[in-house]
Amino acid sequence: MAFSDAEQRAMARALELARRGPRSRNPQVGAVILSPDGDVIAEGWHHGAGTAHAEVDALSHLAPGAARGATAVVTLEPCNHTGRTGPCSEALIAAGVARVVYALDDPGDVESGGGDRLRAAGVSVESGLMAPEAHALLDSWLTARRLGRPHVTIKWAQSLDGRAAAADGTSQWITGAEARADVHVRRAQADAIVVGSGTLLADDPALTARDGDALHPAQPVPVVIGTADIPDGAAIRRHPHEAIHYRTRDLRAVLDDLHERGLHRVFVEGGPTLASAFLAAGLADRVLVYLAPTLLGGPRLALGEIGVPTISRQRRLAVEQVDRLGSDLLVVARPAPEAPEGGS
Amino acid sequence: MAFSDAEQRAMARALELARRGPRSRNPQVGAVILSPDGDVIAEGWHHGAGTAHAEVDALSHLAPGAARGATAVVTLEPCNHTGRTGPCSEALIAAGVARVVYALDDPGDVESGGGDRLRAAGVSVESGLMAPEAHALLDSWLTARRLGRPHVTIKWAQSLDGRAAAADGTSQWITGAEARADVHVRRAQADAIVVGSGTLLADDPALTARDGDALHPAQPVPVVIGTADIPDGAAIRRHPHEAIHYRTRDLRAVLDDLHERGLHRVFVEGGPTLASAFLAAGLADRVLVYLAPTLLGGPRLALGEIGVPTISRQRRLAVEQVDRLGSDLLVVARPAPEAPEGGS
Repeated sequence: MAFSDAEQRAMARALELARRGPRSRNPQVGAVILSPDGDVIAEGWHHGAGTAHAEVDALSHLAPGAARGATAVVTLEPCNHTGRTGPCSEALIAAGVARVVYALDDPGDVESGGGDRLRAAGVSVESGLMAPEAHALLDSWLTARRLGRPHVTIKWAQSLDGRAAAADGTSQWITGAEARADVHVRRAQADAIVVGSGTLLADDPALTARDGDALHPAQPVPVVIGTADIPDGAAIRRHPHEAIHYRTRDLRAVLDDLHERGLHRVFVEGGPTLASAFLAAGLADRVLVYLAPTLLGGPRLALGEIGVPTISRQRRLAVEQVDRLGSDLLVVARPAPEAPEGGS
Repeated sequence: MAFSDAEQRAMARALELARRGPRSRNPQVGAVILSPDGDVIAEGWHHGAGTAHAEVDALSHLAPGAARGATAVVTLEPCNHTGRTGPCSEALIAAGVARVVYALDDPGDVESGGGDRLRAAGVSVESGLMAPEAHALLDSWLTARRLGRPHVTIKWAQSLDGRAAAADGTSQWITGAEARADVHVRRAQADAIVVGSGTLLADDPALTARDGDALHPAQPVPVVIGTADIPDGAAIRRHPHEAIHYRTRDLRAVLDDLHERGLHRVFVEGGPTLASAFLAAGLADRVLVYLAPTLLGGPRLALGEIGVPTISRQRRLAVEQVDRLGSDLLVVARPAPEAPEGGS
């Protein structure tokens, strides 16, 4: 791979342009068109679903024939499919572009192949320029694209013996300050934070990501699932983002809608009923279990029924990480498809 | 401290003699009487509760007056109380012993003080000779003496969410081979291994400490608590030791009897009802929780009711150790008296 200085500057600019676009089911993409001499002759970015892709947006600013022999610098591999807009690879070929430089391959199995299509048409194609920066921008979109829905993290805090609260429902504070601070950092990395309406009524959570008393710059959108109304005085009504309320038990439909809205990283905070429902539905990509060194016994379980009638149907996890947070433990794990080992 | 070669040889011999005594509520103690020239003139050891202590046993082999000016070398501080036998310190003083060398101070608050009593009578007293060896011999007795009952370890295996089995009761194998091997090593370090009669009937455990298919050299005594009979064909009947069966729910009475039998390290293996009862009674000195990276949900809890009506009564633990054993985690903890921190 060899990229000119002009191409490198153009990619940095294209990444800036990409960020102007809305976060949605579609990726944020930017494009810069360079003349054969390396001068910027057009810029574009993706303005949202149903609008032109970044390359086409950039080309639209040029007179017919003005892109002949030009170089298109794009943050994502040009698409090769006909959706609501035409394929970008064909538009670039038709415009007479001689060279295309892009940062990231498109991992999708429908739209990808634009690079190959361009090469087949005799266009010079190079990829990988500023790929890490482009990946950081599109990280959650790439994950959601791989899954076909948002990435779901289920978080709960429990006593070592799996309880979320004492028999009378009291639970503050099972985990310590360091564990709670860790939760806030992870909330800030999520696009949406989800609770059941029962938990909303019981705990009145703010669902903000906080650093002490201060709000983190990034705030996840609060989401409530369940039939109960959100009370007028609920803390969630003072959240920087308006809450989304789904009066349904169809979690897949909820995820599809969040995906459409561009909320690709979903953090499910409970309570036990909702967490169990996500697990039972196989809609958990990661679990975060904050284990407090305490025993509670009794009926207030951190998880309820998750659809495991017999041991062969257990939900094995692959542990990614075990951290000590103050006196608590954090176990980070993802579902493991492997069967458990035998033994005696 | 300065010990002669003869005293050092005598202490090594006294430790050998101590091991001849039975393990019981009373410690294993040995004694050697040296003439003023350093020759062994008598040996003794404690033969069990109600019999003479080691020093008195050794003196009993000597003619009246033969111990005058002698040195008594004893593995434990001579006692200073009048129990079923007279105080050893008085017997040594009456015999005219000029010097007493012992390995370990007696940690008890009734019998100790023998060293001071001897010094007050003008006897030369030195302690600490071969103290580590004596401590190793009396380790479990010292612990039980401090507690006034056996040391109790509660062990259970659970899924990350606190279940011992799937909904239908199946549980083999939640934990992996490394965790199960670790259990066997710890069983071999215990004096007694305790199960509830319900677990005995449900699982028919062998309650042996095994290394693969081979038995460990040390085998804990199997103990069953509960009203159900031990079936004739139960695996426990093939255990190297005959099982002790307590048809009671009075766990303190069980521990008192095990203590009397010299079973100072008790390993409680469950099931959930018995483990919960020990915890509820405050009779757990250590918990070993084998956490398998799996989720089960459902009703089969590793712990049931442990007497925590509200969060201020939670049973906080101090975590001593967190190990990865294959894909499992082992959390070793002891009850912590401290209140949990506050926070927000």
